Amino acid sequence: MDAGGGAGEQLSLSAVRDQLIREEDSIVFALIERAKRPRNAPAYSAACGGGSLAEFFVREAEAVYAKAGHYQKPEDVPFFPQDLPPPLFPTKGYPKVLHPSASRVCVNDAIWKMYFDELLPLFTANGDDGNYAETVALDFACLQALSRRIHCGKYVAEVKFKDSPQDYSPPIHAKDNNALMNLLTFKAVEEKVKQRVEKKARIFGQNVTLEEDSVNKQDGNACDSECKVDPKVLSKLYDLWVMPLTKDVEVEYLLQRLD
Amino acid sequence: MDAGGGAGEQLSLSAVRDQLIREEDSIVFALIERAKRPRNAPAYSAACGGGSLAEFFVREAEAVYAKAGHYQKPEDVPFFPQDLPPPLFPTKGYPKVLHPSASRVCVNDAIWKMYFDELLPLFTANGDDGNYAETVALDFACLQALSRRIHCGKYVAEVKFKDSPQDYSPPIHAKDNNALMNLLTFKAVEEKVKQRVEKKARIFGQNVTLEEDSVNKQDGNACDSECKVDPKVLSKLYDLWVMPLTKDVEVEYLLQRLD
Repeated sequence: MDAGGGAGEQLSLSAVRDQLIREEDSIVFALIERAKRPRNAPAYSAACGGGSLAEFFVREAEAVYAKAGHYQKPEDVPFFPQDLPPPLFPTKGYPKVLHPSASRVCVNDAIWKMYFDELLPLFTANGDDGNYAETVALDFACLQALSRRIHCGKYVAEVKFKDSPQDYSPPIHAKDNNALMNLLTFKAVEEKVKQRVEKKARIFGQNVTLEEDSVNKQDGNACDSECKVDPKVLSKLYDLWVMPLTKDVEVEYLLQRLD
Repeated sequence: MDAGGGAGEQLSLSAVRDQLIREEDSIVFALIERAKRPRNAPAYSAACGGGSLAEFFVREAEAVYAKAGHYQKPEDVPFFPQDLPPPLFPTKGYPKVLHPSASRVCVNDAIWKMYFDELLPLFTANGDDGNYAETVALDFACLQALSRRIHCGKYVAEVKFKDSPQDYSPPIHAKDNNALMNLLTFKAVEEKVKQRVEKKARIFGQNVTLEEDSVNKQDGNACDSECKVDPKVLSKLYDLWVMPLTKDVEVEYLLQRLD
């Protein structure tokens, strides 16, 4: 999170929201890129050493990222944290705006399962074009973007807690997940987010041509079938998985907030 | 290149052009993503072992890609081909539609220099936010997209040669670079490409909101200052570097086409 970056600066809800809105673009771009390739199922079945190519690639790529100094910030969480090498390059410290132990909350196992079991079949075409390495690299970009967005929930939770500790402290002490979930749920806001990501998929996934008519297509449903990723998949992704998992992160964070 | 994928299928100019148009989206997305971060100069200065973080990251990431089976196709060309590890996973063969020795043409050194020395300062803000690992990962995505697009010139050259060998063979035999460059240059087409990538930057780089007015902004110049990457940078990138380098690939390919 860059919001509230400066030393002693406070995290603000509007800065966190701006960050989440920017992450939407990254998620839509990553899905559109992955949709260039068909399902390519062999990339996900066990091969050499018993693991899949997808798992191999993510593990190895995360090791490179770690050596380069990634995974220092609470929203950058590796999928395979075991045995990650230490950074080889100097990294800058980040202002510690979160509660230390709570900042380590991680739901990547759920994201991994959701992505491969549920999401991938919704936005990739059946088929196998043999481009397995490229395919899993594109999967990794999707996973990273989704994980970063969802783990930004830690900042959302911190801001909300700081704004009204008197509302959050009793259910935290009572370990009342449902009460916390209710405090964190704003249906009208969630509806807007769904509409916005759907609109982004429609705009970013269109086939842009120099003809004038592409101007008028962008906001209508007429072009959805020509979009590189069905815009409805984006609202479904946010409705069923991204927002619920973000709130899981928020609840988990809050439950540890007073430790 | 997937165009002309099937065994015995012919490469067609329209399939190659569709591929190039799709690569434009990837380039625009990658630049927009990199523009999230400021320049972050320390990522490009010599650090541990004498190399920069950017160079370290690209080398290590390319090794992972190679182990996963990448760099089999003539348009997927590594920046650091020395000592790349062999693939650890089974890869599918690709139909060999290009002339074998000519298919190895590579202009990645020129792409590397252009990207870091010329392009990066044009579309990133001054500043240093400390996110060096993320920054060089985003650079790698830009480099890969640019390199793939430019090396697709091999297919363009092959299609054009096959269409009229009688026009191309004399300058190839005469090693007449200028004559080949003239045969490959279509100013009107290049002008359209520049306009289209500029339009893509305008559409994909806008801040999408649920308000209606964002519909009308997309085609006007009014919003250029709000775009995540200045659309004019895209037309300049294509004008000064992408199209000239693609034609360099085409000329190099043709010069070896009759070997």
